[in-house]
Amino acid sequence: MTDTPYLVVDTTRLDRNLQAVGDQARRTGVDLRPHAKTHKTTELARRQIDSGAVGLTVATIGEAEAFAAAGFTDLFITYPLWVTEHKGARLRALAQHSALRLAVDSIAGAQRMAAEVSRSDVEVLVEVDSGQHRTGVVPESAGEVAAAARDAGLDVIGVFTFPGHGYGPGDARSDAARQEVAALAEAADRLRSVGIEPRVRSGGSTPTVEFAGDSGVLTEIRPGVYPFYDAQQIELGVCGFDDVALTAVSSVVHRDGHRVVLDAGSKIIGADRPAWASGHGRVLDEPDARIVGLSEHHAVVEYPLSAVVPELGATVRVIPNHVCTAVNLVDELVVDEARSGGAADRWPVIARGANS
Amino acid sequence: MTDTPYLVVDTTRLDRNLQAVGDQARRTGVDLRPHAKTHKTTELARRQIDSGAVGLTVATIGEAEAFAAAGFTDLFITYPLWVTEHKGARLRALAQHSALRLAVDSIAGAQRMAAEVSRSDVEVLVEVDSGQHRTGVVPESAGEVAAAARDAGLDVIGVFTFPGHGYGPGDARSDAARQEVAALAEAADRLRSVGIEPRVRSGGSTPTVEFAGDSGVLTEIRPGVYPFYDAQQIELGVCGFDDVALTAVSSVVHRDGHRVVLDAGSKIIGADRPAWASGHGRVLDEPDARIVGLSEHHAVVEYPLSAVVPELGATVRVIPNHVCTAVNLVDELVVDEARSGGAADRWPVIARGANS
Repeated sequence: MTDTPYLVVDTTRLDRNLQAVGDQARRTGVDLRPHAKTHKTTELARRQIDSGAVGLTVATIGEAEAFAAAGFTDLFITYPLWVTEHKGARLRALAQHSALRLAVDSIAGAQRMAAEVSRSDVEVLVEVDSGQHRTGVVPESAGEVAAAARDAGLDVIGVFTFPGHGYGPGDARSDAARQEVAALAEAADRLRSVGIEPRVRSGGSTPTVEFAGDSGVLTEIRPGVYPFYDAQQIELGVCGFDDVALTAVSSVVHRDGHRVVLDAGSKIIGADRPAWASGHGRVLDEPDARIVGLSEHHAVVEYPLSAVVPELGATVRVIPNHVCTAVNLVDELVVDEARSGGAADRWPVIARGANS
Repeated sequence: MTDTPYLVVDTTRLDRNLQAVGDQARRTGVDLRPHAKTHKTTELARRQIDSGAVGLTVATIGEAEAFAAAGFTDLFITYPLWVTEHKGARLRALAQHSALRLAVDSIAGAQRMAAEVSRSDVEVLVEVDSGQHRTGVVPESAGEVAAAARDAGLDVIGVFTFPGHGYGPGDARSDAARQEVAALAEAADRLRSVGIEPRVRSGGSTPTVEFAGDSGVLTEIRPGVYPFYDAQQIELGVCGFDDVALTAVSSVVHRDGHRVVLDAGSKIIGADRPAWASGHGRVLDEPDARIVGLSEHHAVVEYPLSAVVPELGATVRVIPNHVCTAVNLVDELVVDEARSGGAADRWPVIARGANS
């Protein structure tokens, strides 16, 4: 017996999503290296490898350690780590048993990294800013950083970017995908101009991946959210309600006309809410309902006048806005509950809170 | 050695904050029953009891179970639980060793509760909506719900509210505190009118508590955030930077003029951001800096032109917008690190993810 709220996975939808993106990667001839921060589970990583992924992407050393311990030994940490002595020791330990790729986006960062790890330990990619303006160098500076990394003793194998500005309404997705291709092409040329062959040219992202596959520039894609999808992806037009493979099972605890309060709050679905979102998540079985308020243990939902409003105590499945932060809030995912007859499988979240 | 990002507590500030609110409760003659969801640690709950708290407030049965197991046996679950059979069994088990108070805000909810627990197990308070419009009945309906709960066999001892609409700019705090007092007074009268003495009249909340103490209406206050404070409380005018007792220690991983990126993202400081907030959190040592962007492992900070911008690899302490969701993201809090000479104490977060 699991009391609400909790997160459930539908593996029929999950496997369909994995297959679709795996097929797309094969069709366009790019490597698929999915971002494992989304799910943080051994079982799902295994299914990704089985559906054609060449390895995993992670965000932190801690995530890399968790997946390496689970047997996944081809890992790309897509983050411009400032490699302290302690982080250096952790990376060297990881590199003994894993093929490890790291990111640099500054000369100082590359030199610090080179003081801790060597070309026999890791491969290095230069992070490029394709328009999100978070981390990464402008494409025109990629050659300079790559040369500094090489001159410090590192093995530079390419460039990567995350087109996070594709998370937006209107043409944001296709615009960002175009900028991603242009930035990686420019950065690759800059590496060549300093004598480095950019054999890996790696890009994002669930919202942009359908636009970026055929350019001939990218050699690798790193989508994260696509196994589960979420309310953001619905509202960006990336998927439909029928594609969503993870929901929060919640109970109605308050009911007042067409307004109900559910026990799925920000401590289970996460508080992410971009300005363009219609609310704090969506309701799986009622596309016209809106989550108009969210606190730690309350989601306030307004149902349309035409809807049948669920009764007190009824079960409602909520789609988180951002599935990556929802998964990080639980110790396990309940799997195929509806089909299990009360004996649902559970997938442990192995890298929960692995922020460093 | 702890790698960034991680959460640290300053116990000098913490104890000062505990003392101040403890003193205020004594001065105004109300019971202090702090909300333990904020910190979820045995050590802090012990300090709250030692500074005068009569018991603890919690949000979920799981939090109550965690604190009961840690020896705290006077617990108020301020949530209108829909008491399923399984939740009923958990409540009865809790009630064997703890004084337990529960919340109702509907006749159906009270009857469901009464099917699972009896007046020998628990005491019951009616939740009143004082203007937040989340859960709770309008004050005028409190007598009706209280009478139904009594008639179902429950022991109704009073009324409570959470004036969450006090989280707002301008006069929101004092306005909400006034409405809180008025709502509890009206609800108490309605209980008396059905022959129930409302001996407990319990109110919120860190932002409103300074306005609500002297009315003679409230017998109890339940602030949560006050041990640590956070960026929301700074921006509401409740506290200053010097009062903040919990921060996220982070590293600069990217630097571009007056813009830096820190490794403290939404997976350690939380994604809470009310519309009136100036950003996604604040920087402890630079009040004029603003966190203009936040993703899972990145905080994008803009420093003022006059500021000394921290170098790559430097340590920056970030104040979360909402400390309750930040604490729920980690397994332990690092205590008094600066004074510990490398041997900091750690407080386990005992009810992390205890959402049900």
